Amino acid sequence: MKKNLKHLIGLQDYSTKEIKEIVDLGEKISLSPEKYSNKCHGKILATLFYEPSTRTKFSFESAMLRLGGNIIGFSDANTSSVSKGESVADTIRVMSFYADIAVMRHPKEGAPKLAAEYTNIPIINAGDGGHLHPTQTLTDLLTIQKYKGSLENHVIGLCGDLKYGRTVHSLIKTMARFNTKKFVLISPEELMLPNSLKRYLKENYDLEIIEVRKIEEVIEDLDILYMTRIQRERFFNEEDYLKLKDSYILTKDKIKNAKKDMIIMHPLPRVNEIAYEVDEDKRAIYFNQAKMGLFVRMALIMKLLEVE
Amino acid sequence: MKKNLKHLIGLQDYSTKEIKEIVDLGEKISLSPEKYSNKCHGKILATLFYEPSTRTKFSFESAMLRLGGNIIGFSDANTSSVSKGESVADTIRVMSFYADIAVMRHPKEGAPKLAAEYTNIPIINAGDGGHLHPTQTLTDLLTIQKYKGSLENHVIGLCGDLKYGRTVHSLIKTMARFNTKKFVLISPEELMLPNSLKRYLKENYDLEIIEVRKIEEVIEDLDILYMTRIQRERFFNEEDYLKLKDSYILTKDKIKNAKKDMIIMHPLPRVNEIAYEVDEDKRAIYFNQAKMGLFVRMALIMKLLEVE
Amino acid sequence: MKKNLKHLIGLQDYSTKEIKEIVDLGEKISLSPEKYSNKCHGKILATLFYEPSTRTKFSFESAMLRLGGNIIGFSDANTSSVSKGESVADTIRVMSFYADIAVMRHPKEGAPKLAAEYTNIPIINAGDGGHLHPTQTLTDLLTIQKYKGSLENHVIGLCGDLKYGRTVHSLIKTMARFNTKKFVLISPEELMLPNSLKRYLKENYDLEIIEVRKIEEVIEDLDILYMTRIQRERFFNEEDYLKLKDSYILTKDKIKNAKKDMIIMHPLPRVNEIAYEVDEDKRAIYFNQAKMGLFVRMALIMKLLEVE
Repeated sequence: MKKNLKHLIGLQDYSTKEIKEIVDLGEKISLSPEKYSNKCHGKILATLFYEPSTRTKFSFESAMLRLGGNIIGFSDANTSSVSKGESVADTIRVMSFYADIAVMRHPKEGAPKLAAEYTNIPIINAGDGGHLHPTQTLTDLLTIQKYKGSLENHVIGLCGDLKYGRTVHSLIKTMARFNTKKFVLISPEELMLPNSLKRYLKENYDLEIIEVRKIEEVIEDLDILYMTRIQRERFFNEEDYLKLKDSYILTKDKIKNAKKDMIIMHPLPRVNEIAYEVDEDKRAIYFNQAKMGLFVRMALIMKLLEVE
Repeated sequence: MKKNLKHLIGLQDYSTKEIKEIVDLGEKISLSPEKYSNKCHGKILATLFYEPSTRTKFSFESAMLRLGGNIIGFSDANTSSVSKGESVADTIRVMSFYADIAVMRHPKEGAPKLAAEYTNIPIINAGDGGHLHPTQTLTDLLTIQKYKGSLENHVIGLCGDLKYGRTVHSLIKTMARFNTKKFVLISPEELMLPNSLKRYLKENYDLEIIEVRKIEEVIEDLDILYMTRIQRERFFNEEDYLKLKDSYILTKDKIKNAKKDMIIMHPLPRVNEIAYEVDEDKRAIYFNQAKMGLFVRMALIMKLLEVE
Repeated sequence: MKKNLKHLIGLQDYSTKEIKEIVDLGEKISLSPEKYSNKCHGKILATLFYEPSTRTKFSFESAMLRLGGNIIGFSDANTSSVSKGESVADTIRVMSFYADIAVMRHPKEGAPKLAAEYTNIPIINAGDGGHLHPTQTLTDLLTIQKYKGSLENHVIGLCGDLKYGRTVHSLIKTMARFNTKKFVLISPEELMLPNSLKRYLKENYDLEIIEVRKIEEVIEDLDILYMTRIQRERFFNEEDYLKLKDSYILTKDKIKNAKKDMIIMHPLPRVNEIAYEVDEDKRAIYFNQAKMGLFVRMALIMKLLEVE
């Protein structure tokens, strides 16, 4: 097995400089994607989705095709035969002959990390259970840099399920490394950011954290409002879900006092946590955010394949 | 969103001239497909099949690959994750960043039309419920032009389920625009062409319509015999299905008095409505028809992507 | 339909010379695969998997992409719509317009053979029920040639389920044609090689066959040790399976008296029939074997498409 080979399991393994390089390359690609249309000619990306996620799979596949490469993959371990009792280690060892780089989504925490130990091709974690999903965070970072001009010194509001939301935890930990000025945590009491994470932030970074219950209380102050879905499957009972699900719906009315250049982000898919009327607002950039996901994945594939 | 952008939702939105242009380009492609092998280099087609249809999906994928483009897609909304409560509008908005053109099959009438309103890439309707399936009709038109020399002045027999058959309704409405001489409708009483459609034809076109029960009564008169399947799922009860399903099976014997240059068409898949013995007959061109489907889809993709 | 067209249904249809040519081309490709990266530019491979087999599908897809070609396909007849009552003959006739070559896996014995009769594109059998799986045998042959220098004069040990194992039967019959010196059959009594096959070998070839119960009895004598899985689904009752499944597990200890240049092969996936500790041993080449599968499939596709 090659030494020094770089996978992307979680952003905690990457230096701030390395993250910034990927984001910067993503931004360069976003300006003229056609210049990169042949960078991975002859290379194959394998998309190993042990759990379905059409959107994420598509974004990686499109990224590789836009680089001139090719794709193979499966979208569901059940309709594939990969679950015949074979270990993930054996599967990935064989797959590494068929592809030059692999993206893995797996219901079990740690599966992509394990896979990376048994292969000599780069592995990208595209979500392992409720654990990590680093390319979503890279997408968010490129979006912030592109639409706010820089990653630094922002007041960032995060709204919704801050307790279980993997996307939010990863974004907070990563943005903290880029001199975030203030995190404004907006959530129901039941779904507040875990204390361990708050403690970690206070001990390691010089930034402000405030917690509120309502978007309206803090909207004027925000540079970025990051909305998330309150997922039914995170609740222990239906009653709690029904009580809370509609409390954190963004409407035109709720953003009427927001800054003119505030940006509204969302990892998508949205269900009803942002009213359709908000889509028309210039500050609503969540669809552009999905587009940035394409460019940052192109950048990541290039970095891992050491293509210039 | 771009203005003036062309989708293909249904052929009723296209002028006769526009339809003819696609058919003519399809015919040109059929003569030397290799000349078109690089026309869509670098372009991506997304096949969004919310309901499986392997054959249609394959024909579009092959068409795009034969043009030098690439493909991404899913073949079943259940094993994909697109049904997580997200609207079709949101899904298509995101997909439009990953692809340059999309083909959609959806169990709900109107879904492709809705999708077209929310995207800036061309959308092709590959079947929406029992409603429209315009590329089948384009396939039929190219087949008729190729094997009968022209689209005009034919006596066209249509046999089978004329009541529910989406393919037949669309073909009749479109061929009527190309100066069809006569439609000969061959069906059991229970599955006759809807009166509303007959009325529409009589009010708008100068053509003859006759209705019969048996193929043999009219076979001598036909330039084209279009066979269709009597689908079990269209019947309210099993008894009716069993009584009727075998009544409209084409055999060698039934075509013995047909014109030498009559062509026998079928949209495929066939189950048992055409006996295998008929396959040997030169007039049986239903497999060639499937081939024409490839060429007309290549033509359609080129037109919608404005590639010359 | 073209005459003289070559499919690969089973290796019994190929001359020893033809087999050797494919293996030799596979070995040449293995030395510098990049030289072949454009051999099938513009060609399409259809992977028709009526039963899932991710690994086999991937190896064919990767082979075609590595040759510069493209792929379409389905991985499960249930989520596809190919099972709508249409005959395999009709399906393949249509598919042959969409692709230049097709790989078929089907639960029913003989389905690929039938398909080959109805198409003018080459058909490769990628497994038809418990019947044939010729590209696994080609993979094994290339591995033997590559790692033992030649296909001839070996003492080959075969261990595990020799009664039902399709892979083993095909390998034995094919290697017998290449002057194998001795077959050493290692299996529980319940899973011995069928008498009919033993008789066939004795009547047609000048080679030795011995049968034993334990790996340790014969390990010193072997040039090649071919391990196979004892599949739960082959047993009539759970009790028999539990009793036998662990008896034929290869460990470091069991190979301590083996020749230094013996090779250990396995068709993969393995479950527990080879202990993980054996992976470290230089003689364990089963992962390289999977890699050879890629090269031999590239060679096969080139031969069938008559690409030089």
